[in-house]
Amino acid sequence: MSRTLNTAPAADGFRMPAEFAPHDGCWMLWPERPDNWRDGARPAQDAFVAVATAIAAFEPVTIGVGAAQFEFARARVPAHIRLVELSSNDSWMRDVGPTFVVNGRGEIRGVDWRFNAWGGLDGGLYFPWDADDLVARKVLEVERADRYRATIVNEGGAIHVDGEGTLLVTEECVLNPNRNPTLSRAQLEAEFRAWLGVHTVLWLGEGVFNDETDGHVDNLACFVRPGVVALTWTDNRRDPQYRISRDAWERLNDARDARGRRLAVHKLPMPGPLRMSAREARGVLTRDGAKARRAGVRLAGSYVNFYIANGGVVVPLLDPHTDGAALRKLRALFPGRRIVGVPGREILLGGGNIHCITQQVPARG
Amino acid sequence: MSRTLNTAPAADGFRMPAEFAPHDGCWMLWPERPDNWRDGARPAQDAFVAVATAIAAFEPVTIGVGAAQFEFARARVPAHIRLVELSSNDSWMRDVGPTFVVNGRGEIRGVDWRFNAWGGLDGGLYFPWDADDLVARKVLEVERADRYRATIVNEGGAIHVDGEGTLLVTEECVLNPNRNPTLSRAQLEAEFRAWLGVHTVLWLGEGVFNDETDGHVDNLACFVRPGVVALTWTDNRRDPQYRISRDAWERLNDARDARGRRLAVHKLPMPGPLRMSAREARGVLTRDGAKARRAGVRLAGSYVNFYIANGGVVVPLLDPHTDGAALRKLRALFPGRRIVGVPGREILLGGGNIHCITQQVPARG
Repeated sequence: MSRTLNTAPAADGFRMPAEFAPHDGCWMLWPERPDNWRDGARPAQDAFVAVATAIAAFEPVTIGVGAAQFEFARARVPAHIRLVELSSNDSWMRDVGPTFVVNGRGEIRGVDWRFNAWGGLDGGLYFPWDADDLVARKVLEVERADRYRATIVNEGGAIHVDGEGTLLVTEECVLNPNRNPTLSRAQLEAEFRAWLGVHTVLWLGEGVFNDETDGHVDNLACFVRPGVVALTWTDNRRDPQYRISRDAWERLNDARDARGRRLAVHKLPMPGPLRMSAREARGVLTRDGAKARRAGVRLAGSYVNFYIANGGVVVPLLDPHTDGAALRKLRALFPGRRIVGVPGREILLGGGNIHCITQQVPARG
Repeated sequence: MSRTLNTAPAADGFRMPAEFAPHDGCWMLWPERPDNWRDGARPAQDAFVAVATAIAAFEPVTIGVGAAQFEFARARVPAHIRLVELSSNDSWMRDVGPTFVVNGRGEIRGVDWRFNAWGGLDGGLYFPWDADDLVARKVLEVERADRYRATIVNEGGAIHVDGEGTLLVTEECVLNPNRNPTLSRAQLEAEFRAWLGVHTVLWLGEGVFNDETDGHVDNLACFVRPGVVALTWTDNRRDPQYRISRDAWERLNDARDARGRRLAVHKLPMPGPLRMSAREARGVLTRDGAKARRAGVRLAGSYVNFYIANGGVVVPLLDPHTDGAALRKLRALFPGRRIVGVPGREILLGGGNIHCITQQVPARG
């Protein structure tokens, strides 16, 4: 019940809606790999359950889980959250799930990007990634939504749209030769126009410092609504993040979106800087072919990595010194939505945060 | 999104509807085990695809498939049939899937019977059956339907209802000590009243000769509509099936259903007798713990093992000498439904037929 189409969304009148448009629900995956999540993924599983529970207060949540952990997950996930069997190599639904597109007439379809674990054998995070690359297809089957199989390597976390024709990406990720080495910037823009139905591509430079995804935009900056962007920020000029955020700030302030608007850019404080503790690093098993976790490594924490749900925003809590200010900022940026903080450090230890582990299904009706 | 309830359906105002009531769809599983299906299950997979395709002309079909075969199955199953990842030990959705119940107000729930592979370690067909015993739960998750976990061992193929309070079972199966050895006939009737919302239990004796399910009723007799039953039949008094069908005929003619009606009993011709060929038996791998397939063994073929879909009936074709007569009978019995024959021998070789590999989801609205 998911036809694979030979066309592309834009040509069929489909486009990616903004995350702040209404949803039918949200998909997640169950974390389990002990070479990425400490202590056999028990703490991460608790963190994912807390995120799922927070989102489920706003919209239906489905979690995919491999067969071996199904019963364990079912015993720990509240009954009002749907659990379906779904194999994966890890648990980053934003990146391995479909990017949904809509046609304004109540139909949804999904773009199934080619996935190579954030860089394949050239800097990617693990091998193999075969189960991950089937996740989008399987989600689309359950959703009974037709599928576009994209011809380019991409991840959902590498793109943000305003729903009105503007796409936000980073050069560090999208132009990285470990994704689509044969395609130029102009060719990649054309690809995004075709797969996402956008008109204008806004290029930021690097992503958050030491972000192992090669700088996904969804950890650095996102649309709050059309014409308004949130950006992670530090005033500490000696922090390596300063130069990155400053560059993004300047590019965003120089930009015009697809409707010709200037953007209002709002800064969210950077937590920390945060580092992996020796105890946290010890809890992660090492394995050939997976990225090792080392004590003291700088963590790419960012409050921008939130999920916008129907009527709410679910935000990672990362640092008691900055959590309050970040939540206050977000309350001001999202009037009419409830801002809910959920502890995010365990997710950050695995390499991402709340936005990375979720994927919205736009409303059909 | 599937709460497990601590009550039972009858007490909550739920009952099992008849198969001939309207459906939202049909579930199946993908066959793959090479110690039950010959030639690596390739011919059986083709047969299942033909059944699914026939049913999909009448109502939406979903097939569950284990992770290892997902891509192979997706390449062979038509795109309008939904494929979801779902582990199982074999492919008998009738027996391992949920038995759905309705409340007449548009709600559906599912009864998840305890499953022991048709007899556990005392005559059961394989070990282990742990994945099978999770299938009903997983189907109910995808369907977002609440779940009753039954306290008794049972299979969907062991029960038929008229939707008006009458249940049809066989003593050979339901009273078999390899199912619920501590429960009496009266206690089992009370269990069925609680789990299925029925009032009257009609007991037949044995199931079809040499049926390895211990005589599931769904291979012997079924309701065509309230007050009307179809029964597999042979006029050959020297065939071991004669005595069985004759006994069922007499019991059915003596019976009164839950509404006090006498039953009209219609005979469907028995195919064959059919036997497994040497070539067919050679194609099945042997393995400790699974029932061996031997050349010459009598196959429990029966035209009663059909599936009633919305507006149609999908019937196994089993024997060119009897197929025509069986289809003519069914056309007369089901006015207003299209009768569709699908080759059923490959499914029969695995131990069942079309009814055994399907499970309907009653209409919600």
